[in-house]
Amino acid sequence: MEEFNLHLTGDMHAVAAAHNLLAAFLDSSLHFGNPHGIDPLSVTWRRVVDTNDRALRQIVVGLGGKRNGIPRETGFDIVASSEVMAILALAGDIHDMRRRLGKVVVGYDSEGRPVTAEDFHVAGAMTVIMRKTIDPNLMQTLEGGPCLIHAGPFANIAHGNSSIIADRIALRLCDYVVTEAGFGADMGAEKFFDIKCRISGLVPDAVLLVVTVRSVKLHGGEYDVRVGRPLDPRIREIDLAAVQAGAANMERHIENLRRFGVPVVVALNRFPTDGEEEIALLRERALAAGAQRAVVSDVHRKGGAGGLAMAHAVVEATETPADFQFLYPLELSLAEKIERIAKVIYRAGEVVFEKKAKRKLEWFEDLGYGGLPICMAKTQRSFSHDPKIRGCPEGFSLPVRDMGISAGAGFVVPYCGDILTMPGLPSEPGGTRVDIDEHGHTVGLF
Amino acid sequence: MEEFNLHLTGDMHAVAAAHNLLAAFLDSSLHFGNPHGIDPLSVTWRRVVDTNDRALRQIVVGLGGKRNGIPRETGFDIVASSEVMAILALAGDIHDMRRRLGKVVVGYDSEGRPVTAEDFHVAGAMTVIMRKTIDPNLMQTLEGGPCLIHAGPFANIAHGNSSIIADRIALRLCDYVVTEAGFGADMGAEKFFDIKCRISGLVPDAVLLVVTVRSVKLHGGEYDVRVGRPLDPRIREIDLAAVQAGAANMERHIENLRRFGVPVVVALNRFPTDGEEEIALLRERALAAGAQRAVVSDVHRKGGAGGLAMAHAVVEATETPADFQFLYPLELSLAEKIERIAKVIYRAGEVVFEKKAKRKLEWFEDLGYGGLPICMAKTQRSFSHDPKIRGCPEGFSLPVRDMGISAGAGFVVPYCGDILTMPGLPSEPGGTRVDIDEHGHTVGLF
Amino acid sequence: MEEFNLHLTGDMHAVAAAHNLLAAFLDSSLHFGNPHGIDPLSVTWRRVVDTNDRALRQIVVGLGGKRNGIPRETGFDIVASSEVMAILALAGDIHDMRRRLGKVVVGYDSEGRPVTAEDFHVAGAMTVIMRKTIDPNLMQTLEGGPCLIHAGPFANIAHGNSSIIADRIALRLCDYVVTEAGFGADMGAEKFFDIKCRISGLVPDAVLLVVTVRSVKLHGGEYDVRVGRPLDPRIREIDLAAVQAGAANMERHIENLRRFGVPVVVALNRFPTDGEEEIALLRERALAAGAQRAVVSDVHRKGGAGGLAMAHAVVEATETPADFQFLYPLELSLAEKIERIAKVIYRAGEVVFEKKAKRKLEWFEDLGYGGLPICMAKTQRSFSHDPKIRGCPEGFSLPVRDMGISAGAGFVVPYCGDILTMPGLPSEPGGTRVDIDEHGHTVGLF
Amino acid sequence: MEEFNLHLTGDMHAVAAAHNLLAAFLDSSLHFGNPHGIDPLSVTWRRVVDTNDRALRQIVVGLGGKRNGIPRETGFDIVASSEVMAILALAGDIHDMRRRLGKVVVGYDSEGRPVTAEDFHVAGAMTVIMRKTIDPNLMQTLEGGPCLIHAGPFANIAHGNSSIIADRIALRLCDYVVTEAGFGADMGAEKFFDIKCRISGLVPDAVLLVVTVRSVKLHGGEYDVRVGRPLDPRIREIDLAAVQAGAANMERHIENLRRFGVPVVVALNRFPTDGEEEIALLRERALAAGAQRAVVSDVHRKGGAGGLAMAHAVVEATETPADFQFLYPLELSLAEKIERIAKVIYRAGEVVFEKKAKRKLEWFEDLGYGGLPICMAKTQRSFSHDPKIRGCPEGFSLPVRDMGISAGAGFVVPYCGDILTMPGLPSEPGGTRVDIDEHGHTVGLF
Repeated sequence: MEEFNLHLTGDMHAVAAAHNLLAAFLDSSLHFGNPHGIDPLSVTWRRVVDTNDRALRQIVVGLGGKRNGIPRETGFDIVASSEVMAILALAGDIHDMRRRLGKVVVGYDSEGRPVTAEDFHVAGAMTVIMRKTIDPNLMQTLEGGPCLIHAGPFANIAHGNSSIIADRIALRLCDYVVTEAGFGADMGAEKFFDIKCRISGLVPDAVLLVVTVRSVKLHGGEYDVRVGRPLDPRIREIDLAAVQAGAANMERHIENLRRFGVPVVVALNRFPTDGEEEIALLRERALAAGAQRAVVSDVHRKGGAGGLAMAHAVVEATETPADFQFLYPLELSLAEKIERIAKVIYRAGEVVFEKKAKRKLEWFEDLGYGGLPICMAKTQRSFSHDPKIRGCPEGFSLPVRDMGISAGAGFVVPYCGDILTMPGLPSEPGGTRVDIDEHGHTVGLF
Repeated sequence: MEEFNLHLTGDMHAVAAAHNLLAAFLDSSLHFGNPHGIDPLSVTWRRVVDTNDRALRQIVVGLGGKRNGIPRETGFDIVASSEVMAILALAGDIHDMRRRLGKVVVGYDSEGRPVTAEDFHVAGAMTVIMRKTIDPNLMQTLEGGPCLIHAGPFANIAHGNSSIIADRIALRLCDYVVTEAGFGADMGAEKFFDIKCRISGLVPDAVLLVVTVRSVKLHGGEYDVRVGRPLDPRIREIDLAAVQAGAANMERHIENLRRFGVPVVVALNRFPTDGEEEIALLRERALAAGAQRAVVSDVHRKGGAGGLAMAHAVVEATETPADFQFLYPLELSLAEKIERIAKVIYRAGEVVFEKKAKRKLEWFEDLGYGGLPICMAKTQRSFSHDPKIRGCPEGFSLPVRDMGISAGAGFVVPYCGDILTMPGLPSEPGGTRVDIDEHGHTVGLF
Repeated sequence: MEEFNLHLTGDMHAVAAAHNLLAAFLDSSLHFGNPHGIDPLSVTWRRVVDTNDRALRQIVVGLGGKRNGIPRETGFDIVASSEVMAILALAGDIHDMRRRLGKVVVGYDSEGRPVTAEDFHVAGAMTVIMRKTIDPNLMQTLEGGPCLIHAGPFANIAHGNSSIIADRIALRLCDYVVTEAGFGADMGAEKFFDIKCRISGLVPDAVLLVVTVRSVKLHGGEYDVRVGRPLDPRIREIDLAAVQAGAANMERHIENLRRFGVPVVVALNRFPTDGEEEIALLRERALAAGAQRAVVSDVHRKGGAGGLAMAHAVVEATETPADFQFLYPLELSLAEKIERIAKVIYRAGEVVFEKKAKRKLEWFEDLGYGGLPICMAKTQRSFSHDPKIRGCPEGFSLPVRDMGISAGAGFVVPYCGDILTMPGLPSEPGGTRVDIDEHGHTVGLF
Repeated sequence: MEEFNLHLTGDMHAVAAAHNLLAAFLDSSLHFGNPHGIDPLSVTWRRVVDTNDRALRQIVVGLGGKRNGIPRETGFDIVASSEVMAILALAGDIHDMRRRLGKVVVGYDSEGRPVTAEDFHVAGAMTVIMRKTIDPNLMQTLEGGPCLIHAGPFANIAHGNSSIIADRIALRLCDYVVTEAGFGADMGAEKFFDIKCRISGLVPDAVLLVVTVRSVKLHGGEYDVRVGRPLDPRIREIDLAAVQAGAANMERHIENLRRFGVPVVVALNRFPTDGEEEIALLRERALAAGAQRAVVSDVHRKGGAGGLAMAHAVVEATETPADFQFLYPLELSLAEKIERIAKVIYRAGEVVFEKKAKRKLEWFEDLGYGGLPICMAKTQRSFSHDPKIRGCPEGFSLPVRDMGISAGAGFVVPYCGDILTMPGLPSEPGGTRVDIDEHGHTVGLF
């Protein structure tokens, strides 16, 4: 898989290089007399790097006097959160990518007009840096099945879907194409339908919702799960009560997905420690909630053979007539679109736009971005904005603390709660275990 | 040549990723209670990026409160100046690279002891990131000649030479290997002999000094040359006086190179505007100064055929018995080694160590780095530290304003004058002319 | 009055000098090896200056390398918000001031223990700087009445009351002492009772609540008032509806003050544009709400004679038997005390402690500060935390976003909403109109 | 003396308040759209505070977003170095002070034109803040002699002389006026003659040069003296060789002072540990060098009686005909004036203007400041710029690293070497010993 890592890494690097070139052009422009009249305090374009680096989250650049530019507060995000990555995943071809890169907004002039990459004449160079990334990477599974790997936009800050180009190529090559829409179905699937399908014009024939007994238990039991901590061992024991309680979370996802008018198949992704009665219970609940089929997937243990039942169910689902529809029409106001997602998908009681967000709602409409779809920035650990609220929260108040515009990717981003765009290293980073052995082979990666 | 750029770019990215991983580990360590007791104000390891970005030269990181680490002044350098790049160019194999990465010094603890990458257990992960870069890139010339491209350390801040591994591979494949030692011969060639040859154990048979009429005129005439500005058109006209005056610069390089005990061939790299009498004059002066041969190279116009005379001269030179010797033995003190280079090669009258540099001379000796060779950080535009002093300055006072230690690469770096390790974009960056055309082809690169 | 300004200014300067000396000791201690093990990111002691200076609100100090100390994020507040000022106003004598200065908390060590001025051995020097300020300034009114002016702590961030020492001196010199408790009675009066009376042991005989027709109109009408903007001229016209609507605000203050068991007299401070019927209406409402007397004060127009009726009413009130009681006993938990104030005085429905505040509630209790009284930091423009909510809000949710400890002054400070501790200059500062005339006299101050 | 401290402190505070008001106006102006078009990176006006505070030397202000202004690198200096203090010392009356405050330069616009306090309409308010300080403080010595204390500009960065107003008042009140010109006579006296006398029009009748055996020994012996360290005890023992060697320093001062055409009396300020033969030797050397008289002063031990001989000598000197002349005419170029001082008074061999300084020489001449006198910023511990070079250095190269303009005070400031304008606290500040005792009296000040 190393070769694969390298290829994807190449895309990451190109994205970072294109992204940071724009940032350097921007600061250089401020340094050379600011011909575009940018308000330096309005700049939204940060820099990106592919290392988890908390110290870069909030920085002051341009110190040290005239030749180093203008002092400004800014920071670095992780590459996957770059709008350039989202553009790669949504572009139809290199020319579309070029156009989208040109539309990227970096900040505003003193009268509030957006300043774009096009204004700096840098979108061409960014496209050239990105040229090679337009082609998806063709990989194979352990059994030799073909797999296109292409683009990796974050699902909590960007739209979190595999690329449109890879899907289109796959559609020409195969009978059935399975594409991924990352993280929770409230995030990745909603964005798949309302952003990616709208841009690509493609319509899915069926949805495969992947569920595990373990994740359902998390939503229903009292297990505390934290990133970087070992799992509570009790979660491996049979606990029907927790499954019973947590299944409501799965049900809501099924219900949400059915709203889009497409048949839903539930894949029960089996762990060796799952109890048969737990799986049976989950299956029953899934069917009762409207899933067309609910089948066990055992690919981790049995490879392709373990996925046959699931595959048949999906094929069958694609033959069911569907009536796909978006969650919202683009004609709604930005606030209405956000509220539609929050109330219908997340089941919030209300959306509270903080002062900054409220101001930008109006501003973005004035600037002509009102017709764009919405790309919610929200935790994937809860239907709500608070990762600690498991299960099926309802009637809560969803705070939108700020709004961003990704004019190149083509969506408006409401920030719900506290979304980190630059992870930090833990106190014992995994990297400390990686090394080469005496033959020069890599060790400690897994 | 695009494929080539991509390969080199891949190396660049790996170097940047490995370099910045160490920086992230360092800041993370400061954040998590500083178990190594590093004095944050003593940290010398900065970050790198592959964009010219003046705003990143001097920054404050770690702002925004506890979860973002410790506020510190630091900055970004350009990738080519990374010690990791120098290590790639000097490593014998992957294990040697691993050892060298472990020895990299990032800062000091409160008692002045160096803290290294090994202390953070990150040298292994850095090596794994760098794994693919250990293999040189095999390219071909327009006429199909093989060419290994490998590593690109800056010659003004690092040692500026192609990699040892590429040279060794080439020596197994061919009869004659030509390797590059970048920038002026006072910089690249001196470092080639005293650093690279010392580490590789390889000894050159001959030196090919490349000279142009134009560069000699610059050293002798009154032409003002500035980066980013068009050339003074008068330099294209015949000006024997300027050649006569500037030839002294070439003579000193010949004299310097002969000190190393190796035959010197001068290649007069012809421009279409060069006058025959200018070339003749230069040739005469070169021979008088001790060059074994001085031949015209016309490869730019005629391809390989234009280099035949030069090639024959070099082959002949390699058959001349040589008596290679280093400029200085490692046993000298750091100050003595620096003075030897400054007085013999640059012809400085004295070396003035500023306070900070003086303190570090002692400190580095105490820490056991006294036996390392010297890698001068100096402008390549002058024998002196001042890029405006053309020709053959003599008896000047060379200021060493600070000292650095590259314990992984294996040299001590005296900073002479003002060396920028992060270039800035000009007011009209070349990138503004780059774009794709309607066929998706790159335009504007050349 | 110029001499007066100078005296007060002298106190301001002493407070600033003592405050900033502690800050300099703190940063110097961090510079010299941090012997107290302070966590630099936990430092709460900022610096103060007596100029409105927005650029100093958030700064990074200690830049420029080792000799300039440790880089830290911090800022300047306005002098009046200094805890040293609050200590001056609450100290019983110079020895009490000395003790209180010693208890001032500047930050915490790595185990969360408070570090105090005493730890730096600087409280003595701070006291010596403050020595002269312990004596109140005796001024006289235009009619020769004596007036002690002493200390000026902010009422929105500190307790906003004249000094205890001045009150005690006055009580020895006169039959009746009137002392000021600044800003709205929800802020200054509550703090007067629960903080100042508790510390001084003195008990008031009566309360004089000053009301104007104009302020009542603001709370009841639709007049928009903004700092630095001219008043809406309509507010000068008779508007009984606005008085009727806004009187509820006055009534609530009367009701609140009566809870403390002390007779309340309302002074209707007359403006020339007030309508007789407006004043009559207000008087009626005040008496109905439980004021013992409600009398017109006309001192601005008529001097002392205009205040005779008010004076008689107050004397009469002081002869009424009173039964003074605090709003809360110190034995309640910090959260309970805060909720008591919020619900009883402000009429909030609930108090929402944000994460940071919640953590500090516990922490302060653990550190032994749980028995201190509460000094709310809240806008004086509304019963709520939002200056735009006029009139009598009820049942709102009061956010406590952070908590501070003023261990020297002797209270815990909950920050409700957004309290600026450093004002900014307006775009046309008043200072631009100040100058001297040809005789050297000051012009433009009024 | 406490009252005295308070008065001076009052002046300090007024200077700081006026100085910082201008800074706040400046940053506020940048915040409100920068109507004067100031280049923020050209701002030279810093802030001042009266505490030694190393952490404030180099800071970034204006962080935290739009409402806090524009991020800028700047810092705080100690109050005594404020140009406002120099203006107080040089102003003829309140109107002159007003005019001078208006001329203060804070920075430059994008075309290099100076922006002044007048441009911000703040010089009037600054004058009003400074109003009370225009009157000198009348103190008395322990024997009841009158003494005017007024203004305290630094002698290493400003001109270091008592005020012109105090001198003028004194001249109306007494027969003889003694005024102080601080630090070494190469600094304070030269500035007294060339700046203060030029502005006041007053001419001195005689110079009293104060010398101690101890200081002469420092210049001649091998005693190491460092601020904050106890004196080498050997300096208290008789050491004729050190006196002999160090006397040359005194001689040069005498010689320098005689150049101004005024009789010189040397006061040998006696310490109890001085040897008679040491004093005799010094006296002999002083007379030989051209002092009109050299007499022992014993005022520290004997009060006024101990100064009688000195007083008689001075009176006698004032009766000697004098022929006062400036060191340089204002018509010389700035560079020539600086060179005149450096070569004649300091005995430098050459003045080396660094790049920045050279650029400003031209710039200041262009702006019309070429006719101002020079106020050298240089250490007072050596005739040279290096405090470690004791005795009588000669022929050295004096580096001028930068230039400043004090257009309000009326002089141009060349910065020679490294001048700190903000001291730091030592690791054991004197303040740690200051406190009040049980009677409330100050202890630990002396």
